[in-house]
Amino acid sequence: MSTPPPKSVTAALLIIGDEILSGRTEDANLSYLAIWLEKLGIKLAEVRVVPDVQTMIVGAVNALRADYDYVFTTGGIGPTHDDITVDAIAAAFGVEVEFNREALAVLEDHYEDGDFNDARRRMARAPVGAALVDNPVSKAPGFQIGNVFVLAGIPRVNRAMLESLKDRLVGGAPMLTRSVGAELAEGAIAYRLGEIQNAFTLVSIGSYPYYRAEAYGVTLVLRSVDREQIDAAFAEVLAMITDSGAAPNLDPSNLV
Amino acid sequence: MSTPPPKSVTAALLIIGDEILSGRTEDANLSYLAIWLEKLGIKLAEVRVVPDVQTMIVGAVNALRADYDYVFTTGGIGPTHDDITVDAIAAAFGVEVEFNREALAVLEDHYEDGDFNDARRRMARAPVGAALVDNPVSKAPGFQIGNVFVLAGIPRVNRAMLESLKDRLVGGAPMLTRSVGAELAEGAIAYRLGEIQNAFTLVSIGSYPYYRAEAYGVTLVLRSVDREQIDAAFAEVLAMITDSGAAPNLDPSNLV
Repeated sequence: MSTPPPKSVTAALLIIGDEILSGRTEDANLSYLAIWLEKLGIKLAEVRVVPDVQTMIVGAVNALRADYDYVFTTGGIGPTHDDITVDAIAAAFGVEVEFNREALAVLEDHYEDGDFNDARRRMARAPVGAALVDNPVSKAPGFQIGNVFVLAGIPRVNRAMLESLKDRLVGGAPMLTRSVGAELAEGAIAYRLGEIQNAFTLVSIGSYPYYRAEAYGVTLVLRSVDREQIDAAFAEVLAMITDSGAAPNLDPSNLV
Repeated sequence: MSTPPPKSVTAALLIIGDEILSGRTEDANLSYLAIWLEKLGIKLAEVRVVPDVQTMIVGAVNALRADYDYVFTTGGIGPTHDDITVDAIAAAFGVEVEFNREALAVLEDHYEDGDFNDARRRMARAPVGAALVDNPVSKAPGFQIGNVFVLAGIPRVNRAMLESLKDRLVGGAPMLTRSVGAELAEGAIAYRLGEIQNAFTLVSIGSYPYYRAEAYGVTLVLRSVDREQIDAAFAEVLAMITDSGAAPNLDPSNLV
């Protein structure tokens, strides 16, 4: 009796911000989110970066929320004029923006009376029907509407918000990975590696060359939800490396 | 007599690779490309990251090449089974893949006779009608078809390929930027900053808060192709910071 293939749960990330597209700020959330989701059995399947322009945000959110189980957005939920994410998400869902009572209560509690000005009140705005996502770092909350989670871009706040919303996510089978490095040229192993890939249909094999001043080589990464197949495929990859006259480096994390 | 607004030239980046979406490899090309393009008067306007899946690559390339003046892709042009970018780009343009004679000649010259195997010959494949992009680092070329430049993902190779293709790009007016940091909360300056933004329609003002263990503050970035407007807006931003009781930090590059 064969088991059905494990359910695959997918997510997309939408990074909102001119500062990423201008190159002056390096995104620090993609990689963290990918690894965090993988532990929950959720695969990050697409990422987009768009500017602080409402039509661009609306178009991307509506495309991604239709194609993936979950969508995470980062950026644009602060108090300044360039923070337009709340309005854009509401427009994408075709709902109004309101002052969220719960968010107002959190922020009123956080700021001294004279400091809770109109700009800061803007951070309590959310689409009608949204559920808040707590922000234990700087209080101004993110929110969830449908399958879309709207989060801060600042990495420390972003990560705290992920912990706040964790219980709302339902993952699939956890992804297993095996990695090995070797001082071999990709072109020298490509044929046999392709044969191994063809033999193990439940395993995805990635080949990532690196060039350093002193050396070049390749890191091979196997990914699967099937433990038996990944272990069998990995054994063949290790044999291929040895047969090619190289030594498998089983701690290749520093090579790519 | 008013001058017409400067022509805006735009580009998109398509990052192809499971290794980015799994979080195990951090992209190192986006920020470099953005700054490199800006110097040529070209604005990076959208980025997408897709897996090594042909339908995903085709969909993204066709969407982006219709919307932007130039598209750059990174990744997936090596010799292994997971390098499917060439076939995907050809499919996007509806053309066949061929062995490019010029590329074959470069690679035949580069490899010793016995080393130029079928896998490495794959790196000479290109869509019919493509123009090569030289790779002075590791020889296997990238290529251009229409307004799409197909480049390697390894940063050292990617950067060398950009220099090779530079003369084929036609930029618009160069973007000017002014940055300043201040130990002020965004919420304290948001209102006046919004007024400055409204007064200078040719300037785009971004506000980027930071939180550190020992301090918090904001970096303000002004961008414009109009020197007169950006300088006038920047003077008002500096006055706003001083009026708010803080000292402008004119070297804020280390703050975000």
